[in-house]
Amino acid sequence: MTLTQLKQRSLLGLKELSQEEIESILDRAAYWENHETKVHHTLQGKFAANMFFENSTRTRFSFEVAEKRLGAEVLNFSAAVSSVQKGESVYDTVRTLESMGIDVGIIRLKPIGVLAELATKIKVPLINAGDGNNEHPTQALLDMYTMRKHFGQLKGLTVSIVGDVLHSRVARSNLWALQKFGVKVNFCSPPNMQASELDVSYVSMDEALKSDVVMMLRVQLERHESGMLSSAESYREHYGLTVERASKLAKHAIIMHPAPINRNVEIDDELVEHPQSRIFPQMENGVPIRMAVVERALS
Amino acid sequence: MTLTQLKQRSLLGLKELSQEEIESILDRAAYWENHETKVHHTLQGKFAANMFFENSTRTRFSFEVAEKRLGAEVLNFSAAVSSVQKGESVYDTVRTLESMGIDVGIIRLKPIGVLAELATKIKVPLINAGDGNNEHPTQALLDMYTMRKHFGQLKGLTVSIVGDVLHSRVARSNLWALQKFGVKVNFCSPPNMQASELDVSYVSMDEALKSDVVMMLRVQLERHESGMLSSAESYREHYGLTVERASKLAKHAIIMHPAPINRNVEIDDELVEHPQSRIFPQMENGVPIRMAVVERALS
Amino acid sequence: MTLTQLKQRSLLGLKELSQEEIESILDRAAYWENHETKVHHTLQGKFAANMFFENSTRTRFSFEVAEKRLGAEVLNFSAAVSSVQKGESVYDTVRTLESMGIDVGIIRLKPIGVLAELATKIKVPLINAGDGNNEHPTQALLDMYTMRKHFGQLKGLTVSIVGDVLHSRVARSNLWALQKFGVKVNFCSPPNMQASELDVSYVSMDEALKSDVVMMLRVQLERHESGMLSSAESYREHYGLTVERASKLAKHAIIMHPAPINRNVEIDDELVEHPQSRIFPQMENGVPIRMAVVERALS
Repeated sequence: MTLTQLKQRSLLGLKELSQEEIESILDRAAYWENHETKVHHTLQGKFAANMFFENSTRTRFSFEVAEKRLGAEVLNFSAAVSSVQKGESVYDTVRTLESMGIDVGIIRLKPIGVLAELATKIKVPLINAGDGNNEHPTQALLDMYTMRKHFGQLKGLTVSIVGDVLHSRVARSNLWALQKFGVKVNFCSPPNMQASELDVSYVSMDEALKSDVVMMLRVQLERHESGMLSSAESYREHYGLTVERASKLAKHAIIMHPAPINRNVEIDDELVEHPQSRIFPQMENGVPIRMAVVERALS
Repeated sequence: MTLTQLKQRSLLGLKELSQEEIESILDRAAYWENHETKVHHTLQGKFAANMFFENSTRTRFSFEVAEKRLGAEVLNFSAAVSSVQKGESVYDTVRTLESMGIDVGIIRLKPIGVLAELATKIKVPLINAGDGNNEHPTQALLDMYTMRKHFGQLKGLTVSIVGDVLHSRVARSNLWALQKFGVKVNFCSPPNMQASELDVSYVSMDEALKSDVVMMLRVQLERHESGMLSSAESYREHYGLTVERASKLAKHAIIMHPAPINRNVEIDDELVEHPQSRIFPQMENGVPIRMAVVERALS
Repeated sequence: MTLTQLKQRSLLGLKELSQEEIESILDRAAYWENHETKVHHTLQGKFAANMFFENSTRTRFSFEVAEKRLGAEVLNFSAAVSSVQKGESVYDTVRTLESMGIDVGIIRLKPIGVLAELATKIKVPLINAGDGNNEHPTQALLDMYTMRKHFGQLKGLTVSIVGDVLHSRVARSNLWALQKFGVKVNFCSPPNMQASELDVSYVSMDEALKSDVVMMLRVQLERHESGMLSSAESYREHYGLTVERASKLAKHAIIMHPAPINRNVEIDDELVEHPQSRIFPQMENGVPIRMAVVERALS
């Protein structure tokens, strides 16, 4: 495979992807979503390796289901139970699995920049399953897919992303991708959770509630060292999507969240499966999106 | 799927199951046990998710083998390596996997009542792989299968269950199911391990040894905080199946244990693979039983 | 299966294997390496259980890829997440999986002698994936395969194994197997890392560099309790394959390492993917070797 082909098949982020490329992934996901049979032979004989150097339930299983529905063989690597404990580097682990003949690597890791470096050294396509607070492209793709499904098209929508955008790869991938489609993206965050390097408008919670899409982010409670409950309560008071606030949403507006959810912190329990919520449908849409992305890597 | 169908395909416990339903599962297990080929296409294209919120080796692998022999795709979730650590609830995890398109969920968890609540909210059949000290239906089914295989029929047998019945879901599932078949069930326990809410006779160890089946339970050593060894020795002396006690069993009687075993505590090492022991055959029988139960959930 | 057949299909070590048997495994690996299609139906309907009672990334995935390429169903058992924690013995775990109908067991464990004992009790073929500091036969087989591929034949080669041979199962398996092929094997170790029971010549680092193959072993840093960095630096100075030392190697000589690697301890970072290094090719060769070994166990 040439370096150009490799680059075209990898998915490191949405920032560098063209609107056309994104659209073709969304279209292919629609094909898979509507396909009758559940398991296909498209990738029979291919090996996909899910390499998660950071804990994950949702994303890992979503990729695993996608890979198995495409007929691929699946290897699951999770850092917690491996020789990473013996001091082995991320590079050595990925290179090891490459040597064993995997056809595509799905990678989640914490330190920013490591994935981009890996992509210059590893000879199989790599898919970003979340790298630090940089990008989480398949999450943003499934978010866009969910919006497009509800509104028919993305152009002209207003999307407000509420919460800890400073630490959020989901916010960044959505911002960069949605802007390509003529979507107005706002952020709404407490001052200590704003990302000053991003070119985006910050709005008040009241303003955010006027959007077509209100996307709540998970508060990273584990980053707080003390007074967790009190700050969770105070967070909900100021930035949580409460039942009261949700009642102000337009009838056509939808609520989104990448999950996992802190119920009654950034979003009230009653809203998670509210008719206007798309939280579990987002997870449903993750599977055909990841089928499209993994298939693209291998065809 | 209607709620009634969903309820009929789920297996939450044996207490609510009719004798006919139990018998049809045992018969189907016999079909699978005697089937020539090892892997079938019965459930090709179906996804089974094993969701274990409590550690397990035996039960999880038994389900995995059963699912794979039926041709299903298998997802393994184990709480220890997942975002349950990030405070995500059991409900959210199960609902997440449901959203990703699983066809059946096999669930083990500690708090009683959670499974029953899940079953009212989740739209795919659920199978109980052990919930707290309430029920462990597939274990009791494989126990009954093992007894029926040895004695020809269940009716008229006397089964004594020895040990910590207070904390035992195995004891409860066996009690409720065996009574439907006209089996006389006795318990034999130290006073602090008796389950006062159950309508059952407690007998002495000498009396228990006169039964057709002596089913030893695992002593939950991890529940004891101090003096573990001394209490293990004393437990063996009073309630353990020692070689000496086993010599008093009738020739036709069998020894059972759901495992994992504490060798030389509740049962002597030499008895585990004794000719009258059915401990490893129980594990063998677990696979066809679980094939029958998983198949029933999906057909 | 008779005991003789069982013994012939198991692979507990290379010490007891004849040159002909080793050669036939190497030849079969060459067949699999050059086979066009990636996944075969050879072992369809067979179950392989990887039972790792000690952490592993490389070896476990290598077996998993091999098993899946042969079309087998794979079960992965890892001690860290199992009821071994509840005090269950290794024997009970292996016997449990045997009862569930596995066709071959791949086992890694620490205490020496346990595997040999298991092999007398378990009725399916067992493959040694590393037992204590005794043997690691599939590693030595892939090492020999790598040498044979480079040099055309093994006879007449000189191989120097450098490092902590005292704790190394890789050194032992290679020693015993290579000697059968007329290979001259030297060890090069600090005095406290020598294995006095083995009949082998110890040479200086300078002498080792004159060999056809220089095989570096991982230093078990985790065995050192204090002063780790200082002893690592001093280790590198005296026994590490530095860039300077590597420049003295013959043009035809190759560098090997079983991995995982301590970069800049036993081998300099720049040498890992040096043109004369075969470290990642060793990992590549591990897959066809393990296909040959697993296939042998089941045919």
